[in-house]
Amino acid sequence: MTDVPAEFDRATGVTASADGTYAADLGAGWVVGGGVNGGYLLATLGRALGQTVPGKPDPVAISAYYLAASTPGPATVTTRVLRDGGSVATLAADVSQGDSHRITALAAYGDLSGLTDDVATTASPPDLPPLEQCVGFGDAPPEFRDQAPPLMSRFDMRFDVASAGWAVGTPSGRGLIQCWFRLPDREPDPLSLLLAVDAMPPATFDLGMYGWAPTLELTAHLRARPAPGWLRLRHATRNVAGGMFEEDCEVWDSADRLVAQSRQLARTPRP
Amino acid sequence: MTDVPAEFDRATGVTASADGTYAADLGAGWVVGGGVNGGYLLATLGRALGQTVPGKPDPVAISAYYLAASTPGPATVTTRVLRDGGSVATLAADVSQGDSHRITALAAYGDLSGLTDDVATTASPPDLPPLEQCVGFGDAPPEFRDQAPPLMSRFDMRFDVASAGWAVGTPSGRGLIQCWFRLPDREPDPLSLLLAVDAMPPATFDLGMYGWAPTLELTAHLRARPAPGWLRLRHATRNVAGGMFEEDCEVWDSADRLVAQSRQLARTPRP
Repeated sequence: MTDVPAEFDRATGVTASADGTYAADLGAGWVVGGGVNGGYLLATLGRALGQTVPGKPDPVAISAYYLAASTPGPATVTTRVLRDGGSVATLAADVSQGDSHRITALAAYGDLSGLTDDVATTASPPDLPPLEQCVGFGDAPPEFRDQAPPLMSRFDMRFDVASAGWAVGTPSGRGLIQCWFRLPDREPDPLSLLLAVDAMPPATFDLGMYGWAPTLELTAHLRARPAPGWLRLRHATRNVAGGMFEEDCEVWDSADRLVAQSRQLARTPRP
Repeated sequence: MTDVPAEFDRATGVTASADGTYAADLGAGWVVGGGVNGGYLLATLGRALGQTVPGKPDPVAISAYYLAASTPGPATVTTRVLRDGGSVATLAADVSQGDSHRITALAAYGDLSGLTDDVATTASPPDLPPLEQCVGFGDAPPEFRDQAPPLMSRFDMRFDVASAGWAVGTPSGRGLIQCWFRLPDREPDPLSLLLAVDAMPPATFDLGMYGWAPTLELTAHLRARPAPGWLRLRHATRNVAGGMFEEDCEVWDSADRLVAQSRQLARTPRP
């Protein structure tokens, strides 16, 4: 470990002002499609919320509605405590840039290390080949890498070959993308899980629907502090209809624990 | 059809005040466990939100955080327009009773009848036997009916026998409950789907964990106006851990369309 903060922590850093608002600086390296990545934004506002109520640093549930695309540069996160008492506090957050309201969010914050240790999960981890058999960004054809958004260089993702056909124009048609995931310079924690749930390409890529899929709403549930090591992500859609699709992401840690679940509603890419 | 409003419409009725707040009267018939049913509350605040922006009557996505249990009697729904423009408006709502803040919610509202008619759903409808082979509340043992909460008499639910073991002390252990569902005196619409997604007993009943499971957060996506007729519901949990569980509900209409999807995070019942 070094004393230099990891890139993710620097990029999601917030500075509290006297009036309880937080100043953020959205990084150009996190751009994808028409704006700054939604998971990165969620982690940034999530960091501000984690500093709002003493003893309740962790998101347990968080729901963000994306009103307008965010752009690199200064942003303000405003937080409000709606209720504090018992094991979770209910909080609200808003992200704005200048006069533009970008995101509004509600959240339940608590202390994930204080949860009971009962686990009766019936879901199964992603069916992923060993890491060394999966393909990463570095394995992609140069013409793909040249066109890839900046976001793709912020983390290390290793895709199941069966999930990676979209990168070479042969999507599987299942609407399912799975990968190994890690940040290059730090271990996972609850905040980085907020990034992970919206880090992968849209599951619609695997249906041959390429293009940016703007998120309308995303809710994540954080169920445990992740163990150190690689995460495994499963991202899937089952209901593409009416110009929108739902997308479920599961995040599994190295201890085979389902540590986060998210669902978002997004607009299908326009051809 | 008759001119008398259906029970659900009367019970979720709201009256706009001059200042843009709405008065509601929560019905004692909708009580379950330690308070008024969360789906009924969602439909009530959803009705107020549907009257807030002209031309945008329908919930497309709605996320509610339940701060405290609601009780029968007067309630106030306060709504705010956060952004209006394009095909959806982003709205906020709060429900209070006296000085107590009960629910806070965010939502995207639009017009479900204006969606494109592309459907590429890969999910399958619940695997339910024909209605006449399913069991309803009227088939339950008298000792069960005598203890059932008032809510159970507000709608008609017919359970797959495989999903109904919990009613006689023999849960399947799958964490899955499926049923046919209808309101006795009206056809389904987007508002009644908000009720449907939280109408069933907790999926934990099917794991032998009886008792009230208070919802922390519930998000529903409404994907189409439902066709007339019975709905089919599938309610399942896959991640019971740390004193909480997630619960996914799917609502399918008589035209085999996946019209609503919800996920909630709830506390596991205490033994």
